[in-house]
Amino acid sequence: MPEQRGFGAEGPTLADVGESGVLARILGAAGARGGAAGLLVGPGDDAAVWQPPPGRALVVTQDALVEGIDFHRHWTTPHLLGRRCIAVSLSDLAAMGARPAFCVVTLCAPADTPLGDVEALHGGIEAIAAEYACPLIGGDVSAIAGPLVIDVVAGGTVDPARVLRRDAGRPGDVLVVTGVLGRAAAGLRLLRDAGASVPDDVAAAWRAAQLDPTPRLDEGVALADGGVRCAGDLSDGLLVDARRTAAASGCAAELWRDALPVDTALHAAFNDESWLALAIAGGEDFELLAAVAPADIDALLRDWPEGLAPLTVVGRLVEGEGVHLLEAAGGQALALPRVASRHFGS
Amino acid sequence: MPEQRGFGAEGPTLADVGESGVLARILGAAGARGGAAGLLVGPGDDAAVWQPPPGRALVVTQDALVEGIDFHRHWTTPHLLGRRCIAVSLSDLAAMGARPAFCVVTLCAPADTPLGDVEALHGGIEAIAAEYACPLIGGDVSAIAGPLVIDVVAGGTVDPARVLRRDAGRPGDVLVVTGVLGRAAAGLRLLRDAGASVPDDVAAAWRAAQLDPTPRLDEGVALADGGVRCAGDLSDGLLVDARRTAAASGCAAELWRDALPVDTALHAAFNDESWLALAIAGGEDFELLAAVAPADIDALLRDWPEGLAPLTVVGRLVEGEGVHLLEAAGGQALALPRVASRHFGS
Repeated sequence: MPEQRGFGAEGPTLADVGESGVLARILGAAGARGGAAGLLVGPGDDAAVWQPPPGRALVVTQDALVEGIDFHRHWTTPHLLGRRCIAVSLSDLAAMGARPAFCVVTLCAPADTPLGDVEALHGGIEAIAAEYACPLIGGDVSAIAGPLVIDVVAGGTVDPARVLRRDAGRPGDVLVVTGVLGRAAAGLRLLRDAGASVPDDVAAAWRAAQLDPTPRLDEGVALADGGVRCAGDLSDGLLVDARRTAAASGCAAELWRDALPVDTALHAAFNDESWLALAIAGGEDFELLAAVAPADIDALLRDWPEGLAPLTVVGRLVEGEGVHLLEAAGGQALALPRVASRHFGS
Repeated sequence: MPEQRGFGAEGPTLADVGESGVLARILGAAGARGGAAGLLVGPGDDAAVWQPPPGRALVVTQDALVEGIDFHRHWTTPHLLGRRCIAVSLSDLAAMGARPAFCVVTLCAPADTPLGDVEALHGGIEAIAAEYACPLIGGDVSAIAGPLVIDVVAGGTVDPARVLRRDAGRPGDVLVVTGVLGRAAAGLRLLRDAGASVPDDVAAAWRAAQLDPTPRLDEGVALADGGVRCAGDLSDGLLVDARRTAAASGCAAELWRDALPVDTALHAAFNDESWLALAIAGGEDFELLAAVAPADIDALLRDWPEGLAPLTVVGRLVEGEGVHLLEAAGGQALALPRVASRHFGS
């Protein structure tokens, strides 16, 4: 179980093998492994060269994970961290309706970082890259006198006529989400405060939702195939992301509390205010939020492929701006929970 | 002269405007500016969507600049740092014979970083992006409890039949470099030790070579158009990069000291050992090194377009491995100068 071994491997450090040595080991392995479909020049040259499939557009997203902000070493393992840094970018590809094509990764690490930790992190990257056909084709390694930084750019491809955009919604569209909300935020709370009284299996599932999220790639393509053109992911939580989608589309979002697909264990473990905050203001569930034309919603729900994360109607787009939380469709307005942020500002 | 203003702007900090506020300002400006040819979805969505020109291959390169390793705030200005982080990636595109298409940038900065510094850095990015038709189409901003980190991915396009590769050389090929060697390393020495006695205009040129390097994009395309298939850039210096190209091509590199195109002021300012070390072991000149078939070299030199950095023959590829420094073609072997490295290991 390589994902179980924490940080702090025995043996040589990055200073012992040097930056180019680390890069050669990581990208040498990537080169030997084969590589992306269409890869003309792989790792080891000044840049990678990749031939896009004819007619497809390229989707590009960039996300950094920074130690002390996005994670702590004692929360996770190098393997899971490697998986997570790619999953976060894959979620952005999913939110565009794209299929993954390749990724590149920069790792900044202190000179005393054990080489074994970097190799385990790289193992996590390779594992999830293989699962989702998103091979590592290049990157950079640098020393840093500071925290670990892992910056990922993922490239995907999409039919340009089937791109999922934030700005393609209109008033009256039905808002749907994939999967269940709040587990990742609950997992983060457990990681920060181990004292919460939650059954072990529930706690494990919540921590896994936080540390090893699942990108909704098949769900993104299914939305696009189902005629949907407006979607985004829930990296920052339903409240923030519904506001973002609504703003890009020039309208307001209305969310219905009684419709939210919330883990039932969340209700049991937290009070009314807390579970709602975790479910819609916590973020990092990496589910998808889509705005669906009223004429299309019944067919989309009826024909939704088995085996995918379920779709749930959670509200609608309306004239105006901002985000409104109602008790239920047509019900009373509620105060918005406070949005948590790991980053500077609010 | 926005490039003259150092770090430490007055006014609000990143903590005052928040991460999403910073990103919105930067990418909002990028979105308003228009964007790349073929850009279908620009900044502000989950990812950018870009339609590659038919028949062209995509070239992808990633490079991080880390404060304390690659630069110090008192050496440079935010504007020049913004230019440099893009120039370094453009040099990799040049080394593949590619034309720039787009870039994405992650900035990790402490919460107390002045917003004015980030805006000046972004101004430098936009300036060089406009000069080389490499528009900023996305990115990420994150807090960090540590040094500034700027990680750039640049995308370019290339005719797949005219890619410049490190591994396409063969014994007998003539090695040529563009431009003049050693200025960037000399500039770094001046930045580290202001006491060197060099005329002001020379010192300014050397510092500029270090802080604001010129990517050799037209030169890369001219090499490819001239039939060359093997090249790389000199980011790590001629000694390291000639060894790398030779190794990728399964041979050895022979360099001729008396043929090296070295700034004459380098001879005047440093002793024999020092100027040679600066010229071939210092790195960061971001010139190109190419291996040219003997049958093609005369035409390449004769037809080299005016206005481009000049080409100089500096050695050849031979059977064997490693890199050998000779006094001159057919001359005596010399000891290799020690290679400087800013990073961990050597």
